[in-house]
Amino acid sequence: MSPTRLESDSMGQIAVAADRYWGAQTQRSIENFPIGVARFRWQRPVIRALGLLKKAAAQANAELGELPAELAQLITRAADEVIDGRLDSHFPLVVFQTGSGTQSNMNANEVIANRAIELAGGQLGSKSPVHPNDHVNRGQSSNDTFPTAMHIAVVAEIERDLLPAVGRLRDSLDAKARAYATLVKVGRTHLQDATPITLGQEVGAWVAQIDFGLAAVRASLPGLCDLAIGGTAVGTGLNAHPQFGERAAACLADLTGQPFRSAANKFFALAAHDALVQCSAALRTLAGGLMKMANDVRWLASGPRCGVGELIIPENEPGSSIMPGKVNPTQCEALTMVCVQVFGNDAAVAFAGSQGNFQLNVYKPVMVHNVLESLGLLADACRAFTDHCAGGIEPNPQRIRENLDKNLMLVTALNRHIGYDRAAAIAKKAHHEGLTLRQAALAEGLTAEQFDQWIDPLAMTRP
Amino acid sequence: MSPTRLESDSMGQIAVAADRYWGAQTQRSIENFPIGVARFRWQRPVIRALGLLKKAAAQANAELGELPAELAQLITRAADEVIDGRLDSHFPLVVFQTGSGTQSNMNANEVIANRAIELAGGQLGSKSPVHPNDHVNRGQSSNDTFPTAMHIAVVAEIERDLLPAVGRLRDSLDAKARAYATLVKVGRTHLQDATPITLGQEVGAWVAQIDFGLAAVRASLPGLCDLAIGGTAVGTGLNAHPQFGERAAACLADLTGQPFRSAANKFFALAAHDALVQCSAALRTLAGGLMKMANDVRWLASGPRCGVGELIIPENEPGSSIMPGKVNPTQCEALTMVCVQVFGNDAAVAFAGSQGNFQLNVYKPVMVHNVLESLGLLADACRAFTDHCAGGIEPNPQRIRENLDKNLMLVTALNRHIGYDRAAAIAKKAHHEGLTLRQAALAEGLTAEQFDQWIDPLAMTRP
Amino acid sequence: MSPTRLESDSMGQIAVAADRYWGAQTQRSIENFPIGVARFRWQRPVIRALGLLKKAAAQANAELGELPAELAQLITRAADEVIDGRLDSHFPLVVFQTGSGTQSNMNANEVIANRAIELAGGQLGSKSPVHPNDHVNRGQSSNDTFPTAMHIAVVAEIERDLLPAVGRLRDSLDAKARAYATLVKVGRTHLQDATPITLGQEVGAWVAQIDFGLAAVRASLPGLCDLAIGGTAVGTGLNAHPQFGERAAACLADLTGQPFRSAANKFFALAAHDALVQCSAALRTLAGGLMKMANDVRWLASGPRCGVGELIIPENEPGSSIMPGKVNPTQCEALTMVCVQVFGNDAAVAFAGSQGNFQLNVYKPVMVHNVLESLGLLADACRAFTDHCAGGIEPNPQRIRENLDKNLMLVTALNRHIGYDRAAAIAKKAHHEGLTLRQAALAEGLTAEQFDQWIDPLAMTRP
Amino acid sequence: MSPTRLESDSMGQIAVAADRYWGAQTQRSIENFPIGVARFRWQRPVIRALGLLKKAAAQANAELGELPAELAQLITRAADEVIDGRLDSHFPLVVFQTGSGTQSNMNANEVIANRAIELAGGQLGSKSPVHPNDHVNRGQSSNDTFPTAMHIAVVAEIERDLLPAVGRLRDSLDAKARAYATLVKVGRTHLQDATPITLGQEVGAWVAQIDFGLAAVRASLPGLCDLAIGGTAVGTGLNAHPQFGERAAACLADLTGQPFRSAANKFFALAAHDALVQCSAALRTLAGGLMKMANDVRWLASGPRCGVGELIIPENEPGSSIMPGKVNPTQCEALTMVCVQVFGNDAAVAFAGSQGNFQLNVYKPVMVHNVLESLGLLADACRAFTDHCAGGIEPNPQRIRENLDKNLMLVTALNRHIGYDRAAAIAKKAHHEGLTLRQAALAEGLTAEQFDQWIDPLAMTRP
Repeated sequence: MSPTRLESDSMGQIAVAADRYWGAQTQRSIENFPIGVARFRWQRPVIRALGLLKKAAAQANAELGELPAELAQLITRAADEVIDGRLDSHFPLVVFQTGSGTQSNMNANEVIANRAIELAGGQLGSKSPVHPNDHVNRGQSSNDTFPTAMHIAVVAEIERDLLPAVGRLRDSLDAKARAYATLVKVGRTHLQDATPITLGQEVGAWVAQIDFGLAAVRASLPGLCDLAIGGTAVGTGLNAHPQFGERAAACLADLTGQPFRSAANKFFALAAHDALVQCSAALRTLAGGLMKMANDVRWLASGPRCGVGELIIPENEPGSSIMPGKVNPTQCEALTMVCVQVFGNDAAVAFAGSQGNFQLNVYKPVMVHNVLESLGLLADACRAFTDHCAGGIEPNPQRIRENLDKNLMLVTALNRHIGYDRAAAIAKKAHHEGLTLRQAALAEGLTAEQFDQWIDPLAMTRP
Repeated sequence: MSPTRLESDSMGQIAVAADRYWGAQTQRSIENFPIGVARFRWQRPVIRALGLLKKAAAQANAELGELPAELAQLITRAADEVIDGRLDSHFPLVVFQTGSGTQSNMNANEVIANRAIELAGGQLGSKSPVHPNDHVNRGQSSNDTFPTAMHIAVVAEIERDLLPAVGRLRDSLDAKARAYATLVKVGRTHLQDATPITLGQEVGAWVAQIDFGLAAVRASLPGLCDLAIGGTAVGTGLNAHPQFGERAAACLADLTGQPFRSAANKFFALAAHDALVQCSAALRTLAGGLMKMANDVRWLASGPRCGVGELIIPENEPGSSIMPGKVNPTQCEALTMVCVQVFGNDAAVAFAGSQGNFQLNVYKPVMVHNVLESLGLLADACRAFTDHCAGGIEPNPQRIRENLDKNLMLVTALNRHIGYDRAAAIAKKAHHEGLTLRQAALAEGLTAEQFDQWIDPLAMTRP
Repeated sequence: MSPTRLESDSMGQIAVAADRYWGAQTQRSIENFPIGVARFRWQRPVIRALGLLKKAAAQANAELGELPAELAQLITRAADEVIDGRLDSHFPLVVFQTGSGTQSNMNANEVIANRAIELAGGQLGSKSPVHPNDHVNRGQSSNDTFPTAMHIAVVAEIERDLLPAVGRLRDSLDAKARAYATLVKVGRTHLQDATPITLGQEVGAWVAQIDFGLAAVRASLPGLCDLAIGGTAVGTGLNAHPQFGERAAACLADLTGQPFRSAANKFFALAAHDALVQCSAALRTLAGGLMKMANDVRWLASGPRCGVGELIIPENEPGSSIMPGKVNPTQCEALTMVCVQVFGNDAAVAFAGSQGNFQLNVYKPVMVHNVLESLGLLADACRAFTDHCAGGIEPNPQRIRENLDKNLMLVTALNRHIGYDRAAAIAKKAHHEGLTLRQAALAEGLTAEQFDQWIDPLAMTRP
Repeated sequence: MSPTRLESDSMGQIAVAADRYWGAQTQRSIENFPIGVARFRWQRPVIRALGLLKKAAAQANAELGELPAELAQLITRAADEVIDGRLDSHFPLVVFQTGSGTQSNMNANEVIANRAIELAGGQLGSKSPVHPNDHVNRGQSSNDTFPTAMHIAVVAEIERDLLPAVGRLRDSLDAKARAYATLVKVGRTHLQDATPITLGQEVGAWVAQIDFGLAAVRASLPGLCDLAIGGTAVGTGLNAHPQFGERAAACLADLTGQPFRSAANKFFALAAHDALVQCSAALRTLAGGLMKMANDVRWLASGPRCGVGELIIPENEPGSSIMPGKVNPTQCEALTMVCVQVFGNDAAVAFAGSQGNFQLNVYKPVMVHNVLESLGLLADACRAFTDHCAGGIEPNPQRIRENLDKNLMLVTALNRHIGYDRAAAIAKKAHHEGLTLRQAALAEGLTAEQFDQWIDPLAMTRP
């Protein structure tokens, strides 16, 4: 059996692994909440955000005279290790715990206190010279720290992970749109052949949709930059210095480079997390757009012979051991699966967001978990899609030309030259006799020169 | 201004249109809940169910000696008019009212009482000889009557509307599956060409999926046949005759031919409506299957020239004024829009179902509304789809044959005759040089006789 | 049998009721899509938007020389009647039709053409002098007109219906927050007694949350002001004058006072409706906030004796015939039912929004239907809630005081005067012996003067 | 750099870590799908199911003469190690990959082949004597093996994990219901005081609801016992022995003790996963019931002084360092967070289930992932809730009695003795003057003996 030490809280003593910095409340949570342990431990973004928060709080308290400088410095040094990821193995708790995230707040307090004590040459568990509640958690409550950490984590991951990853996909597609700006092809509405467009226009619509989704995500950032810190237990800020919230938010802005600020209404900041709900919805909008794009790609690449077949996508793995040329759209499949997951996660977030009571919403952990999962999966999937699919998309010019030539909708261009009735007669003849439009037009008396001059698919696209 | 009379309840008097049977509580609800009035008034199924319930309650009370026979008879006569739809214009209330449906229960009590009074030659609003509470509502509470009416309405509509409508679509598709049991065509996985199947197998999979959905809906019926009646206000049955619930349920079974019975646990029957949640989920499963089928139909009918083009669907309306042959899959579009609506409605039902407190769930009206809307829309859309699309689906044999001949996956059948390596070489040659498999095989040394003997697509489908 | 006339389209002739202005395509849709007819006919907002669009299109075409002035004037006169609601009975079609809304676009074209013909003294069905396609639909396609009408309708209803209704509720609550800015009461976190707040702070959090939701809705307006008009069938604008989209959008801006403009990317505007998805999500966020508020209200008003009982809400209808004082929170129930409906509707919208293919999303009607239903229900429910609940909310000062006095969390204020240990001992004594904090404090040696001076709940709220 | 060996597939050679059994296709998947790697690797249930499937397939092939006995034996030995969990570290792939699960099927084939080769003394990567495709995957395709493994995994986890865990919670609550069968307390409807019930009745309703949810989950099992195996690539069973599906299913039934059988329609079994959708919906229904129960528990335990306060729940961790008696309902919070996650996961499953095309649904991995996550979280949370909350729930008899005595609804019992009017007068007096019902009754002339005899709350509950 591995060595332990005793840690204590207001309920008494409890044994903790000797080589872990956490204390009594973390240990109780481990024992009381064995729920999804293999997959639902907090990951880097939340641990890092808790470290940033505790560092900012120590600095703000020190500046306001609420904490001796040497304690603030000790806390800062320990918090820096949390921020850097050196203490991740000391954060064993899972999402499904107290709905206020109390135990993860205490986990941060306990780990930072014990590590600070160690740095000061003290004894783990002694709460001296650094006390997890009185010093690390000074002027704070789980009810304001955890939602603050939620916002810090989500803003950071959107900026670090999501926006660059989706942006790279967007740019990759945009390059394709430009490259094929004048490659004419059949348009399709209701899945039916329609008047022509260029491949650049088709791909450009995906870019515009991704841009819309990215703008929606960006529009959720200001709400996320409003921080609950300073509200303490119920929003009144009891036990915190009156300027603590603003000072701590300013420190966080300094530390992160993000425009964090103290929320105007702390009661709202504790009792509801609508900024997260809006962020989740924006991720869902983005996912909807990515799903449409990925579906278009796989349909356009369907075949190789009995589908649409107008695009060729990279072959990344064996599609079938017997049939060369069978390229399964696996990146599309992975991305669209991520998209439906994002839809599901968003449903959980919005449901949770509606369930607050009085001064507290106690679905905080499940809300931030789902938002972080959604954005992380979207970022990963967009990177994979860019690297293994989008970047390698090529048109199949032969198939595109064949389809364009077969498309009877080109007849629309004849109206102005020979009138609607003759044009319709040509189209009808082609349809009923299985002819190309050109064949039918010549049979109906047009010259080849007239046809080739009047039927100009590229002009019809107004490129 | 139209003439009015005064009706009264425990809050005092209120003016009601003289030609309406409803009373004070209905009138107050009209004034207090002007929410979605144009679209959310209760329709036939719920009004009829309330009539059935009040009739059964009167009969049960009479049998148990709780109500004089002549009053029971008057109530029965008035309730019959409610059941038959003659008094629908006297049910003005909407879904969004009290969450227990109290006001619609009182609406039924008031209308039946006043109509019974009229039949007895009495004066509207006099509550004599038939009192809405003491007689029509005897031994009942909104808390048990409304959920009873919910179950009656949903069971009735499933049997009357949904099952026949979806069953007819199922049979229509099944006939197609049988008709084309040996019509071989290309199979598709990952949207990519795959080994052959028959059109009958493809359509038969839709039939099997619809059968699964129908079975799920049927499996929800037993839970819906458990009735809350007899529980009164909190589930204890206070103020009802101890045998009232069972007797009323038996009367309802007699009146409707459905196996209704008194719920084993009345507390659960008032506080939660999980039978409706399960029913809604089954409708969602059915909708998911219909969506897949409708998507397959429109993709298979896509084109006419630049898509898959293997099916021809009826042309019901002009697709385009210029292009003959453009047949938009409008019935597929209407049906899939209904399916997404059913998904949305189901989300509302499940959310509402989770929000009960203590002895009552107060989301009753919105739950039954959404279930009824979903099943009604599915029934309507399946009827339209059967009549205007499914019944007229025809294969495009030429396109099917072309695609089958082009499909390189047929090479699989050569493995056993010439070995994997030679077969793969033929497939590769065909792919790279744009040949048919037959062309490539002959170029690689097979005889035409060998190829035609060995490549037997129908045999590959194991029809 | 009522008299009919013959109308025709490219599929031939069909009988139409003689007194209706619609034509052949509308009639076919009636017959082909008998889906949800009783509840899913388009209502004022969409009909009006189609009228506005057709008027703007006629004006733009006239300005650009694409339509003779006299025809434009005739169309304008007929469109004005559509806008004003005089022709609503000539719009019989339902949501579940072609997914592009083609048939409703044609309904507008046919009705306006026939009415214009009538105004010109012509014969209904003659298509002369005003042709539904060539003149009313000139330079347009269903694929760009219907999404344009969707945006016009939603923007108009948000401005006309939703924002004022929710704003009035917001103001009503804000007045309460101000009125009770210093009424101290117990705070609650985890449903457990916590440190005090003022009623004004509690209500003010609801106001802040509603403000957040309203801001989210407003933030969705710019996306909705981008119009698809000018894209015609696939986004290229084929058959429309190159400046038609911009001119028509400018006319619409003039007609409505809204900042409508031509969408920068028409391909995106036809193939996806993410602005509607974002709008729906904002409505969901708003609904989540309203749900939290309504739940708080009913819990705070729970009782009257065995619940929280701190608020008194208006008694609008009999709660129970036997028990005076039982006031059911019926407006809360109606509002929260609306909120779950909005959640469900939003799920349908987002699902539909993800299902576009190539150049068209064919879930247009179901998307706009759900957004309009959600915002209309929210507006109605907020009006009812304001008038029949929020405006009449009163505190129960006696109960609030009792609860505050009982609340042991006030002990927090003693820490600074007698130290944490003595304070905790007082709290423990009160808890174990069932005393008030004051009783326990006096028993532990504080004087009444000390207690009354040191325990100042209002000060703890930092009002 | 760690040592590698070369593995090959139809795309060529690729380096694999020398100490891993996986082969080329697994390695390509690692490189192509770096999506959610930290949290979305397949866990025990799916790996074990793949092992069971491959063992059953080897046995079935051997019995049918399709595989030499010695190869079948080698495969069986390696598969047993997969089943037992000894090779979990050789399954590195994630959920978000090919939508058919091809790469995880190949992962199983490759690991079993290489381990079997090793057991036979051969060389890793040599594909001799055991070939991953020709032998381990014999008569199979990813398209039928992966959905088969999905069903095996879900059935196993429902039986092993979910049903016992939820059943134990159910039994724990049932014991409470029996223990307090006659403890009378106030009932509550609309959150308002209502006629009395017993605590046993209140808790018994939770038990009945959980029973309903469990029955729904059990009802989903038969559909899950239908296996796709034998369908191979498109459902026709091409390349498999005609009896392979039935034989393999029978072997799986033997190995697991579950009534697995070959699905009647293999085309449906590949193209849709409605049995999983129904299972997910049943988990959602169960979650809805658990949410209602957990909400009731925390409301009944709210306070300790300013809430309902009728239940006392175990104190598992410090609620607040300053206030003794503050017991946060943390297990309720964890459980309800799990419930909203289950709702979200279910939304993803149903969405994914609707998105199949033609012969294949390519959302298989995300569907099984969410179902397994939901059931695992529910099982974990129910265990924690039973151990740390439900088992320790105690009534607060004093508070229950106080509330009961205050409850004016008891007046209902006086009606039969003194008439409705006098009873109502007593209730009104009590309400307006803040008296107990007993006080008011005595003031209105009843004797104490009459009151105590006539007001019998227990009798009102009909226990």
